[in-house]
Amino acid sequence: MNYRMVLNMLGKILLIMAVLMLPCIVVSAATGGSDLLAFVISALIIAAIGGAFLFIKPKDTNFFAKDGFVVVSLSWILMSLLGALPFLISGVFTNYIDAVFETASGFTTTGASVCGAISAMPHGIGLWRCLIIFIGGMGVLVFVMAVLPLSKERSMHIMRAEVPGPSVGKLVAKAKNTAVILYGIYFALMLVEAGLLLLGGMSAYEAFTTAMSTAGTGGFMVTDAGMIGRSYYLQAVAGVFMLLFAVNFNIYYYVLLKKFGVAIKNEELRWFLGIYAVAALVIAVNIRGQYPTFLHALHHAAFNASSIYSTTGFASTDFNTWPMLSKFILLLLMFFGGCAGSTAGGIKTSRVMILLKNGWNELRRLAHPRYVHAMRIDHKPVAEPVVRSVLVYFSAIIALTFLSILLVSLDGKSFETTVSAVFACIFNVGPGFDAVGPTSYYAHFSYFAKIILSFDMLIGRLEVWPILLLFAPPTWRRRSAFR
Amino acid sequence: MNYRMVLNMLGKILLIMAVLMLPCIVVSAATGGSDLLAFVISALIIAAIGGAFLFIKPKDTNFFAKDGFVVVSLSWILMSLLGALPFLISGVFTNYIDAVFETASGFTTTGASVCGAISAMPHGIGLWRCLIIFIGGMGVLVFVMAVLPLSKERSMHIMRAEVPGPSVGKLVAKAKNTAVILYGIYFALMLVEAGLLLLGGMSAYEAFTTAMSTAGTGGFMVTDAGMIGRSYYLQAVAGVFMLLFAVNFNIYYYVLLKKFGVAIKNEELRWFLGIYAVAALVIAVNIRGQYPTFLHALHHAAFNASSIYSTTGFASTDFNTWPMLSKFILLLLMFFGGCAGSTAGGIKTSRVMILLKNGWNELRRLAHPRYVHAMRIDHKPVAEPVVRSVLVYFSAIIALTFLSILLVSLDGKSFETTVSAVFACIFNVGPGFDAVGPTSYYAHFSYFAKIILSFDMLIGRLEVWPILLLFAPPTWRRRSAFR
Repeated sequence: MNYRMVLNMLGKILLIMAVLMLPCIVVSAATGGSDLLAFVISALIIAAIGGAFLFIKPKDTNFFAKDGFVVVSLSWILMSLLGALPFLISGVFTNYIDAVFETASGFTTTGASVCGAISAMPHGIGLWRCLIIFIGGMGVLVFVMAVLPLSKERSMHIMRAEVPGPSVGKLVAKAKNTAVILYGIYFALMLVEAGLLLLGGMSAYEAFTTAMSTAGTGGFMVTDAGMIGRSYYLQAVAGVFMLLFAVNFNIYYYVLLKKFGVAIKNEELRWFLGIYAVAALVIAVNIRGQYPTFLHALHHAAFNASSIYSTTGFASTDFNTWPMLSKFILLLLMFFGGCAGSTAGGIKTSRVMILLKNGWNELRRLAHPRYVHAMRIDHKPVAEPVVRSVLVYFSAIIALTFLSILLVSLDGKSFETTVSAVFACIFNVGPGFDAVGPTSYYAHFSYFAKIILSFDMLIGRLEVWPILLLFAPPTWRRRSAFR
Repeated sequence: MNYRMVLNMLGKILLIMAVLMLPCIVVSAATGGSDLLAFVISALIIAAIGGAFLFIKPKDTNFFAKDGFVVVSLSWILMSLLGALPFLISGVFTNYIDAVFETASGFTTTGASVCGAISAMPHGIGLWRCLIIFIGGMGVLVFVMAVLPLSKERSMHIMRAEVPGPSVGKLVAKAKNTAVILYGIYFALMLVEAGLLLLGGMSAYEAFTTAMSTAGTGGFMVTDAGMIGRSYYLQAVAGVFMLLFAVNFNIYYYVLLKKFGVAIKNEELRWFLGIYAVAALVIAVNIRGQYPTFLHALHHAAFNASSIYSTTGFASTDFNTWPMLSKFILLLLMFFGGCAGSTAGGIKTSRVMILLKNGWNELRRLAHPRYVHAMRIDHKPVAEPVVRSVLVYFSAIIALTFLSILLVSLDGKSFETTVSAVFACIFNVGPGFDAVGPTSYYAHFSYFAKIILSFDMLIGRLEVWPILLLFAPPTWRRRSAFR
């Protein structure tokens, strides 16, 4: 482990985090918010810690995959611990664990909240909740890569650890340029959504925070009601953009290059839209009795399926009152969670594709033992190690989900609350069912459960291994045989 | 597909099934039961169908793995469909779907019942419910192999398809002899348990049916209360024997050969006992408030953990009233389900071992990409194809579990009922929680849900692939490219 290099990089990340508080300071000053001092103090503390780390100069520049994982997981944990400072200092949260839960929920784009009085928050705090979603969505270290010079080797190790999905496709030769392009698309899409929300009558403050929250598929908003009871226009805009942000960003790059053929033929995109359409339609039929017309039912089914499949977590209606079939479909969509290379959570549609295709191949192999058939995606064969790593990832996330359910069940909440809370956190969705439904909050959980759920959010966002490696003692040995 | 050979073998199985009704006919005649005629008619119908199939002589004797799967899955489905005849003809069940559910539940050693008036059943019917568990536990086709001459090739294909676990170990060179040895051990253990239950004051009828039900880890009994409220002695006997029948039978063979060292060092056995001990202890601490002393709590924790981990499904107390943590531990034990090569359900402890060891290897590999380390079990390296097939099996059973939950949720039962019912059926346990708890029955489900749950039982008992192959059209092509 190259400790010096790791600490040095953490220093850079903290400095950038301090800079990211500037917009909140500006908004707070402009609106005469009570949270101005809180942001100034927080930024100074974080900058001081980051500056201290920067004094640690790396002795050698070797940077291995393991170091990439450790930088990513430590920086996400540090960000959750320190990003909580404004919440605590401003007095919006009176408890540090609650503040950390809320911050981890933001950075990981989960959007699960422990706060029940959102409309009353000062504007700076409201912006901070949505800004960390926006930064966390595309990846904090990808952001660092986009603005700081890093070696090529380091860049790829970091992108692999932080960008979701079974394999990272570089768009252009240099990882740094890829990061810049991705952030450009991301920012532009967010601005378009904010503009459309403004047209629908939202205030500038609400439009921009909501757009940032949608972009990161996070789900925080600045009012208590959120998307419930808003105009059909606003719901439609958010509904469409949630889907857009759950699509692999490489596709937008192809669109920019006018390679529409490549974009449209993308197999994961087709599965994603297909699964979405079927889910929304089945839900609409299933819930039609609860709404005046089938079109109303279809609107709410389409909105909430988009929200849950993209793992955003907005709600246009209280889907906790829906029939069981619809709720289990939503639970499955949480698990699937958008496309690889997007800001969505879940295990990603491409992994679902690989798992299903592999199951079908297995059936063929059992019937004809000598039959060999490589899996194909986008007409290209998928290497066996990729298939295997998807299988292993699947087993790991299921195991961690079950372990978390056991630990959270110590709280004695209902079966439905316990299971859906863990699903909603580990797959970075936000709202679940029953006592964590879209009109409820996570405030009633014990501190122990909140800590477990915070770890779940990090495990889900960083796709298991970076966080698990932190808990494996051999990771910390200088020259490790890792036995 | 060698249709003639498949039908010919199905004929033999049906004839043996008709013969298996003889004990029920004897018991019914001896007790003057109202079900005597029902068994005679059923046996004649089944023998007639079986005899007709026997007239189909195979033209060639080629018998491939695919044919083995099809024979196994078709014979289990046929047995469920025809084994239901005595229930229906005797009038104990008035509905054919209910009767088939009960029969599938018996043969697959699930023990989920749709009948709420068990004490009132005639003795022949009571025996039939437990006899099919006994036969289903070790495998119907393994039974056929033990009594009929079969080619070596056919034997192995059938054992692979029917005996649970990641790999079938032949004890002796000939599969037929292995089958005879396994059935011998199985029968002897069952007789010992019946003897001990007799000593505890059970009637001969109840002792033998209960012992058969324990041996198959099924869970049917001949009284409504089952094991609830029985003497601590009787509960202790059943509790210990449930564990014994969830152990790999190869271990008893080693014990017979006086190779105690090999038996005790068996890694799966150690994991099984370790997991069991931890689970029982944690549950005991968790439920201690509900019982007069900690020892009482420990007794019930030990009994019900044994019952659920072995996937038998007896209950010494209504564990549905236990705290959430204990219920989720039981749910996890359902999923694990005993050892490979035993009569238990679930995915088997050896698969859990392989999955966890593989996850740990993956962590090592991520930290040190050039690190190669083969997994070892019982100090022997585990071949990569075995690991891979466990990963694929795991993904398939999870996918089927989720699909079943979606379909069963159409009934609109509670979240807890729906999830635990599917777990209890697909992992061949029997009782779940809430409306399918140990004091409840499956009668309230719709016919559609009962059909899905019956398929789940078969999927779980035959470990996924034989049943799935039935639904893959290429299986049915004579010369199939299976594309």
